[in-house]
Amino acid sequence: MSDTSPNLPSATLELACQLIARRSVTPDDDGCQALMMERLAAIGFQCVRLQFGEVENFWAVRGDAGPILCFAGHTDVVPTGPEANWQLAPFEPQIVDGMLCGRGAADMKGSLAAMVTACERFVAAHPNHDGRIAYLITSDEEGPAVNGTVKVVEWLEQQNEKITWCVVGEPSSTNTVGDVIKNGRRGSLGAELTVKGVQGHVAYPHLAKNPIHLAAPALAELAAEKWDDGNDFFPATSFQISNINGGTGATNVIPGALDVVFNFRFSTELTAEDLKTRTVAILDKHGLDYEIKWNLSGQPFLTAEGPLVEAAQQAIKEVTGTATVLSTAGGTSDGRFIAPTGAQVVELGPVNATIHKVDERISAADLDTLSEMYEGILKKLLS
Amino acid sequence: MSDTSPNLPSATLELACQLIARRSVTPDDDGCQALMMERLAAIGFQCVRLQFGEVENFWAVRGDAGPILCFAGHTDVVPTGPEANWQLAPFEPQIVDGMLCGRGAADMKGSLAAMVTACERFVAAHPNHDGRIAYLITSDEEGPAVNGTVKVVEWLEQQNEKITWCVVGEPSSTNTVGDVIKNGRRGSLGAELTVKGVQGHVAYPHLAKNPIHLAAPALAELAAEKWDDGNDFFPATSFQISNINGGTGATNVIPGALDVVFNFRFSTELTAEDLKTRTVAILDKHGLDYEIKWNLSGQPFLTAEGPLVEAAQQAIKEVTGTATVLSTAGGTSDGRFIAPTGAQVVELGPVNATIHKVDERISAADLDTLSEMYEGILKKLLS
Repeated sequence: MSDTSPNLPSATLELACQLIARRSVTPDDDGCQALMMERLAAIGFQCVRLQFGEVENFWAVRGDAGPILCFAGHTDVVPTGPEANWQLAPFEPQIVDGMLCGRGAADMKGSLAAMVTACERFVAAHPNHDGRIAYLITSDEEGPAVNGTVKVVEWLEQQNEKITWCVVGEPSSTNTVGDVIKNGRRGSLGAELTVKGVQGHVAYPHLAKNPIHLAAPALAELAAEKWDDGNDFFPATSFQISNINGGTGATNVIPGALDVVFNFRFSTELTAEDLKTRTVAILDKHGLDYEIKWNLSGQPFLTAEGPLVEAAQQAIKEVTGTATVLSTAGGTSDGRFIAPTGAQVVELGPVNATIHKVDERISAADLDTLSEMYEGILKKLLS
Repeated sequence: MSDTSPNLPSATLELACQLIARRSVTPDDDGCQALMMERLAAIGFQCVRLQFGEVENFWAVRGDAGPILCFAGHTDVVPTGPEANWQLAPFEPQIVDGMLCGRGAADMKGSLAAMVTACERFVAAHPNHDGRIAYLITSDEEGPAVNGTVKVVEWLEQQNEKITWCVVGEPSSTNTVGDVIKNGRRGSLGAELTVKGVQGHVAYPHLAKNPIHLAAPALAELAAEKWDDGNDFFPATSFQISNINGGTGATNVIPGALDVVFNFRFSTELTAEDLKTRTVAILDKHGLDYEIKWNLSGQPFLTAEGPLVEAAQQAIKEVTGTATVLSTAGGTSDGRFIAPTGAQVVELGPVNATIHKVDERISAADLDTLSEMYEGILKKLLS
């Protein structure tokens, strides 16, 4: 299907299908944002297109003053991989056995649709709501994340605008929509380590220095290290080697260097600097000759409590009758760029079981439920 | 130059240049063996061409009965790499500042020439020598070593022929020709190890099993292990990892497997089976899930003493006035295929400083000295 959506059971599903039908593989937006802005402008939002590099973003706001409740998200999706591996065409959304199928259904075009329809209903009922409602939408969350939310946040700072409460539409749920919300995320610190040796022939090891042999005990110690115990909101900090490569390919040559790529996902119990210091101490203890390049891709953030967390918990309880679990597990999200401005941030979205996979799908009914939850948050904070 | 060799100071150098001028990059022979057989046939050798697959080999023998003193060697050379990196064209042999320059000068066309001229002089002086003189020449020593010496040795066994003494022309010398002879070689046992884990996202390490983390302490233990102390003839057995590769390239994925390639160079103090058993015990102790593929590319061999070693030592002493050193160090050679037949084996050849490198070269005068040494061995064993 393209933009025509026959017999769709709800406005949210209809808009979700219109968004999924657009091939917005990161960083392409493919008209998704224009569609959203059209809907938002129709209910009184002021929309500002913000293009940085090749990345489309927009900021939309309704209301003149007061605290800002911002819905944040992305229109870009990850690539499909070979489309032949999909049971259904990834950009031709269909509802099969109650499931909405298509690339982006869960991450996160379903959420975008639910945000828009929630606002449409809320604004219709509360045309003169308190404070302001805003949207911060990017098309590079799945890409390098350089010209997206980061740049929009910088632009907001230049405008002296501050987001008070931010609901990110990332698929936070595990089994049913709203069972888990993310009220923080671990930090992410990456490193590229090169351990240096001296190349030589395996038959003459006394003339060489094998960097793999030299590094092995240090890597074993880093892998065994207990970095912290986590805390009430965060699991223990974890260290993982993602890539290790050494050798010329020849079986009779001791290589001159070993390359190791590793990553910390870290709690608020320690800082990136702590991790760097302790890593270097272990490498130095083993007498390694090395170079290391660090990449801090996200500071940890946490919205431990406050009006936003309460509003989200209550709204979910009112819609589903069940208590939600606060979690900081999982990967990074654009919340890491918004939280440092002082905003309270929660992530609430559909079940994440199929994100980034083939045959991405979510319960169609969950989208209407999600839209009600977003509307509930709007009511609690702005009416 | 091609086959014409103006003003060359000796028959040995002239023949060496004729051989070097042939581009016999492994496994090509490019006419080297035909040239050698022509010279040997002229002095009464019976020559048999033995082609296996694409590899040229020959066996030549002079004399009807009695012990066989065999000269063994190869006409193939390793590739030159970019010829622009050579100061002189690698296949246009020249003598510059007393050095014979060209690919194969040291490894081992110089030795082949010295063997032929040594025999020519010896046969002229002793037309009815004792026993038999033989040549076992291949063109795949520098390649996979499958259709060369191995196959010729099998063929000899079918003929019920046994080599008594074997002089391999590998460049054994360190500073001056004859200062070191090899009377054995370490064994070489290779392995390809795959340590299995479970792939996953670095943010969800509890759902994955990182094979790099699991393997690191086992690799550290293997690298630190003392396998033996060596003995009078062999250095201690050494373990070297030549290649290690794990990871998808992505920085946020824990890989599902780690590949490690390692190699033992081992003494006669233990066997390949001992090494396999002890390696597996260490891997099992660390609870690894793995597959391992072993490749025994050479059993260790040793000619500790006997007529051949004595003859070589005495011949060198008579030519240079100095004592030679017996050694088993260095890489493998085709001697590993000949020694198991019961033959005594020594390797005697020129200085190996430039083998396999650009600008391969040896002292031109050393080739005449080497030819005298070979002649001395012939005299001691067959006259």
